Amino acid sequence: MIRRLLCSLASVAIVAPLLALSPAPPPGPILGYTQEHAAAERAAESTFDANMNAAEMKSWLRRLSARPHHLGSPYDKANAAWLVAQFQSWGWDAKLETFQVLFSTPKERKLELLSPTRFVASLQEKPLKEDRTSNQIGEQLPTYNAYSIGGDVTAPLVYVNYGIPADYEILAQHGIDVKGKIVIARYGGSWRGIKPKVAAEHGALGCIIYSDPRDDGYWGGNAYPNGTYRNATSAQRGSVADIPTYSGDPSTGGEAPIPGAKRLAIKDIPTLTKIPVLPISYTDALPFLRSLGGPVAPAAWRGALPITYHLGAGPARVHLKLDVAFGYVTAYDIIAKLAGAERPDEWIVRGNHHDGWVNGAADPLSGAVAVMEEAKAIAALTKTGWKPKRTLVYCLWDGEEPGLLGSSSWAEAHEAELRAHAAVYVNSDGNGRGFLFAQGSHSLERTVDEVAREVVDPERGVSIERRQLAAQKLRLDGFASLQADDEGGVDVAAPIEPGSAFHLEALGSGSDYTPFVQHVGVAAINLGFGGESGNGSYHSIFDSFDEYTRFKDPTFAYGLTLAKTAGRIVLRFADADVLPYAFAPSADTIARYAREVAKLVDDEGSATLKRNALIDDGSFTFAADPRETFVAPTKRSPVPTIDFSALNDAVAALQTSAQAYDAALGIALSTSTAPSTASATDRALLAAEHTLTTPTGLPRRPWYRHQLYAPGFYTGYGVKTMPYIREAIEQRNWDEARTGIVTVAAALLAYRTQIDIARVTLAGK
Amino acid sequence: MIRRLLCSLASVAIVAPLLALSPAPPPGPILGYTQEHAAAERAAESTFDANMNAAEMKSWLRRLSARPHHLGSPYDKANAAWLVAQFQSWGWDAKLETFQVLFSTPKERKLELLSPTRFVASLQEKPLKEDRTSNQIGEQLPTYNAYSIGGDVTAPLVYVNYGIPADYEILAQHGIDVKGKIVIARYGGSWRGIKPKVAAEHGALGCIIYSDPRDDGYWGGNAYPNGTYRNATSAQRGSVADIPTYSGDPSTGGEAPIPGAKRLAIKDIPTLTKIPVLPISYTDALPFLRSLGGPVAPAAWRGALPITYHLGAGPARVHLKLDVAFGYVTAYDIIAKLAGAERPDEWIVRGNHHDGWVNGAADPLSGAVAVMEEAKAIAALTKTGWKPKRTLVYCLWDGEEPGLLGSSSWAEAHEAELRAHAAVYVNSDGNGRGFLFAQGSHSLERTVDEVAREVVDPERGVSIERRQLAAQKLRLDGFASLQADDEGGVDVAAPIEPGSAFHLEALGSGSDYTPFVQHVGVAAINLGFGGESGNGSYHSIFDSFDEYTRFKDPTFAYGLTLAKTAGRIVLRFADADVLPYAFAPSADTIARYAREVAKLVDDEGSATLKRNALIDDGSFTFAADPRETFVAPTKRSPVPTIDFSALNDAVAALQTSAQAYDAALGIALSTSTAPSTASATDRALLAAEHTLTTPTGLPRRPWYRHQLYAPGFYTGYGVKTMPYIREAIEQRNWDEARTGIVTVAAALLAYRTQIDIARVTLAGK
Repeated sequence: MIRRLLCSLASVAIVAPLLALSPAPPPGPILGYTQEHAAAERAAESTFDANMNAAEMKSWLRRLSARPHHLGSPYDKANAAWLVAQFQSWGWDAKLETFQVLFSTPKERKLELLSPTRFVASLQEKPLKEDRTSNQIGEQLPTYNAYSIGGDVTAPLVYVNYGIPADYEILAQHGIDVKGKIVIARYGGSWRGIKPKVAAEHGALGCIIYSDPRDDGYWGGNAYPNGTYRNATSAQRGSVADIPTYSGDPSTGGEAPIPGAKRLAIKDIPTLTKIPVLPISYTDALPFLRSLGGPVAPAAWRGALPITYHLGAGPARVHLKLDVAFGYVTAYDIIAKLAGAERPDEWIVRGNHHDGWVNGAADPLSGAVAVMEEAKAIAALTKTGWKPKRTLVYCLWDGEEPGLLGSSSWAEAHEAELRAHAAVYVNSDGNGRGFLFAQGSHSLERTVDEVAREVVDPERGVSIERRQLAAQKLRLDGFASLQADDEGGVDVAAPIEPGSAFHLEALGSGSDYTPFVQHVGVAAINLGFGGESGNGSYHSIFDSFDEYTRFKDPTFAYGLTLAKTAGRIVLRFADADVLPYAFAPSADTIARYAREVAKLVDDEGSATLKRNALIDDGSFTFAADPRETFVAPTKRSPVPTIDFSALNDAVAALQTSAQAYDAALGIALSTSTAPSTASATDRALLAAEHTLTTPTGLPRRPWYRHQLYAPGFYTGYGVKTMPYIREAIEQRNWDEARTGIVTVAAALLAYRTQIDIARVTLAGK
Repeated sequence: MIRRLLCSLASVAIVAPLLALSPAPPPGPILGYTQEHAAAERAAESTFDANMNAAEMKSWLRRLSARPHHLGSPYDKANAAWLVAQFQSWGWDAKLETFQVLFSTPKERKLELLSPTRFVASLQEKPLKEDRTSNQIGEQLPTYNAYSIGGDVTAPLVYVNYGIPADYEILAQHGIDVKGKIVIARYGGSWRGIKPKVAAEHGALGCIIYSDPRDDGYWGGNAYPNGTYRNATSAQRGSVADIPTYSGDPSTGGEAPIPGAKRLAIKDIPTLTKIPVLPISYTDALPFLRSLGGPVAPAAWRGALPITYHLGAGPARVHLKLDVAFGYVTAYDIIAKLAGAERPDEWIVRGNHHDGWVNGAADPLSGAVAVMEEAKAIAALTKTGWKPKRTLVYCLWDGEEPGLLGSSSWAEAHEAELRAHAAVYVNSDGNGRGFLFAQGSHSLERTVDEVAREVVDPERGVSIERRQLAAQKLRLDGFASLQADDEGGVDVAAPIEPGSAFHLEALGSGSDYTPFVQHVGVAAINLGFGGESGNGSYHSIFDSFDEYTRFKDPTFAYGLTLAKTAGRIVLRFADADVLPYAFAPSADTIARYAREVAKLVDDEGSATLKRNALIDDGSFTFAADPRETFVAPTKRSPVPTIDFSALNDAVAALQTSAQAYDAALGIALSTSTAPSTASATDRALLAAEHTLTTPTGLPRRPWYRHQLYAPGFYTGYGVKTMPYIREAIEQRNWDEARTGIVTVAAALLAYRTQIDIARVTLAGK
């Protein structure tokens, strides 16, 4: 499901010290290790690397992607059985865990333009002779959006750009209302499920989502099969369940779908869409867009089709019919364990999903075969006498695509165990050539940084922190466009802080880490390579072995690099004397979030004053072209004073404790032996991330309990940090912002206390 | 020729005090007038307004645009004769002044794609039944670029984006050299003549320029005849003579083309292109662009055609043949005078060109009919007993389109008189619905501001300084795209200084003010309305009466408003007690330019250090995709210390003198009678702008003598302020920058002295 490969480089906010990029860094200390153990760890890692080979990964990818393998399909089940057998053959304690989960598939899809001309959308991706699995039509899911409700609607059409809330403000200024209309939105700008959600909030009757060639088609590069960009008939499948409310089985309302679980009736499921939704190709979209009249769309709304983009409404009149079958299918999770030799009750969890929308070679199998390769190499490592100190839990999830069903179900079912045992969850998803992208709990930042400095980019021979160089280079005049990413733009205004350390980005949603970090409260990271391989086959019949091996990672060099990177993180967590968290960088980042939310209030305050003044003096109207409809915006209430002192005090206390812990850990491991109380330290550390969650979670979405990271309610995949506070401010809900401030402050104080406890335990010798 | 209507709002750097926008401002003082005379002036202006009517302007526009009327055509001559008769009929002392000037027209044009497929460009705009003059093919100039040399070349093709120097740096990074190739550039990003100039500097053999629909076609709005945007077969004619070297007749090398003038042989004319150039429509361009291979063009280079834009070189192989006829034709300037009653030796000059590329309804006739309407209304005013204190000189220029031939010839021929008599030159060109755009000598800023505050926008009923509101509005979040200008983007990062006064932008080139201000040294302004009327018919057969009256200014309300605005400026200069210059705002703006050029050196210094460091550590290479050709940039020499103290001292002295003069003028006119020495003050003031010119002009282009304003050597129309210094820095020519600093400082000291002289003359009573 994840779309990281297309994500912008804009979020790179740092320049790694250049020394970090030299190909053979001097072995230094490893966080959580005594010096002696660090050397042993590096030796084990070398063996681990040597145990892996790319050819095997390629053969596995061929096998797993040979047929469509979506949730509920025969080949999905066959893959699961084959995968568990593989893990068992390597010596892992592997088994299938199954869940009965609600899935939706279309029975009938119809989309037609009734006027001013007549056109019936084909709704069919056209197989290519250059892609050997693209003609498996009988097993392919049609192009559709899972968890859309059915419907049969006829109405004038309105173009709503990406269909996010700000787009509707622009429409309102043009005097355009979508009430009683069908909207057509383009993919991009937000997670797809936001589009029908916001459209329905504004009274639309139906929603069409199309792939504009500006966003992932020919505008960016050669279309498949000549390149990796989406071609004329390719459409993007995907879930539109309201995952920002809860992920997992929609029918259980956020509970584990275990036998006996209460199931909601279809009509009562809050995360299904309120209106029918259908994804189409740009070939199908063009006649609809061409038939729109009304105002010309704003510059930022225009795609790459050879037309003048208009907003409507009408004269295009559209008929959309969708008949949907809802039913229960089995999700097959593969859970493989390797017991820890010393601290078996501490779990290092690693996962990637195995289900695809169709053949799913890149998404998710390219990441899944890295998980397999790691597991096999670790098993081989045990033959040398090495044993993990802690227990490894390797997982391959089913049903990620429709809404993280396999991982959420398992995390919900095992919540108590996870809170008791899980030290970290390491996720991956689709992978490709290019740069390392990493997001995660900020306490894991130092370990990820240490690992990334030691893993070598297979094509450039420097550290995989190579991406920081790109970020720096992109900011020099004249070079901004050279490395423009796949989405076609690089935000050169993103802040850069020379000399600062590697930063983990915050986690939003879009892959299987969500139930772990945001629901259960397990520190998590998500890793993958991309940015040089394109991703225009995303969720289409062309995400195939042929496409992957031709364009995405032909030698599997980056597959191997992902296995080295994620595997190292797993091994370092598994073998450390003390679990390798560092809190000072995390506290500093949290302090930045606190500054950001306070600034958000200040900015909204001054923007409101300015805007209201301009409304009062008629500026908006005077500036508008009198020959075009223009509805001046209305005044907003002034922003009240918001007291952030509780938050700021908690942050300051946290920073003090975090520095104290990090210093104490350094001292504790500076001798040849680790503290005798290290196990107690682990117990304290493992609980630290839990303290950042609250039992009642976020307003209106209690399933999301983490007070630092959540997918935005109106962005979907995009993260909102300190979401309780930030989203309240964005929605101008000042009372909720105040409640959010004390809630987050309390969580940070609990986090601080847990860090203090961990520090105290380090005293034993 | 001017393309102001398409210019961005980005250059609006100010917010006018909101009071200025109230529809009926309280009559205040007028710069240069005693209070009593101000009231009389306003009364005359009211009569002037009442003397004008839009219907007349419409009928004149219909008559003048009825047939193609380019330089040298029969209808151009007929228009000139008709125009001079009109002026005479109103009582003006009007006559034709003629010049024999070099012009070029094509004898043969051929453009074909030889491989990988074969295609022959039509090179023909297709007439439309909705446009009644578009089928006058027999009289139309074909689509071509004047002053291109002929040639017959066959070579692989390279796409060079806008074809400016920075674009060739990007090409070099991709390992692409245009030497021995034909380049295809899109219109926009610079004046068109820059494209073949830079291409030839890089060794290209030929240059094709096409109109990408991203820049003025369907991307921006409905194409003609459904809207104002350029349609599928429309191509942009235009001059490619190297006007940044000198404007006017190319064959005289910057001298007046009067009888006996020395004429250069064609092969010796420095301003003709070095390679053949041909403009084409996007329909003709598409097969060429589609046939390009090589790297995908950077994001910023991609247009709105439904293709992946590639750079080449090849496999597209192109044959371009151009056979050009050079010959002498007659340029007909209309010069009409109305003698001043009190100070006849002071001239207020007003002009607009009358030649078009084809029917030229918008460009230039919409401005020319405003000039006519002013002249007729002024003549009517004289019937009421009013006489101008100073002499009015109303001009309609021929041959502006090929390179400001009529105006340059006249200014060169009358240079001595102009320096002796001309107080100001007021220019206009094409006009349309929308906002006031004004550029000019900064000493005229206060008068333009005073006038603009009193002229009412005909559709919004507020001051025509309405544009400042738009600029302010555009900077609020969520509104940036609403009023995006015709080029599709608004630079919301442009600085805004709340409460600061109206600013005149600096003058570059592109219309007939250039010979006056930049060659002779007469203070000049350029005015026009636009931004709400589109300009996709620019230099095509569709710049017609039908198009103009359907889209650009159907009621001629903005034509009337232009006449009111420009006419008021003329009248205020004509009648003032003391010529209405104000120097303090001018000095402050000059101080800003001085800060800018110093900052340019600082910025280049730090950018060089950073860039060289990144080259040293291999960052550029490590960041590039290893599967794509990437040629790392080479290091640049460090920036030396540049001493700006001479410039800064001169600026400080100027600011002191400017403030002293403005204060002294205020005192001198605060009594009921003006100083008895006002005429001497006028003489001193009239010479002030001259002091900003130097006899030897700018390096390598002595024709351009002004030390504050010049068209950029590599931008063409775009202004470079303090060009001697600024362009030397941009070209890293440090010695020339140092010479520039003392040259500009000396000019500013001379300017200061002239202002001091003017102040001294105010003492008489």
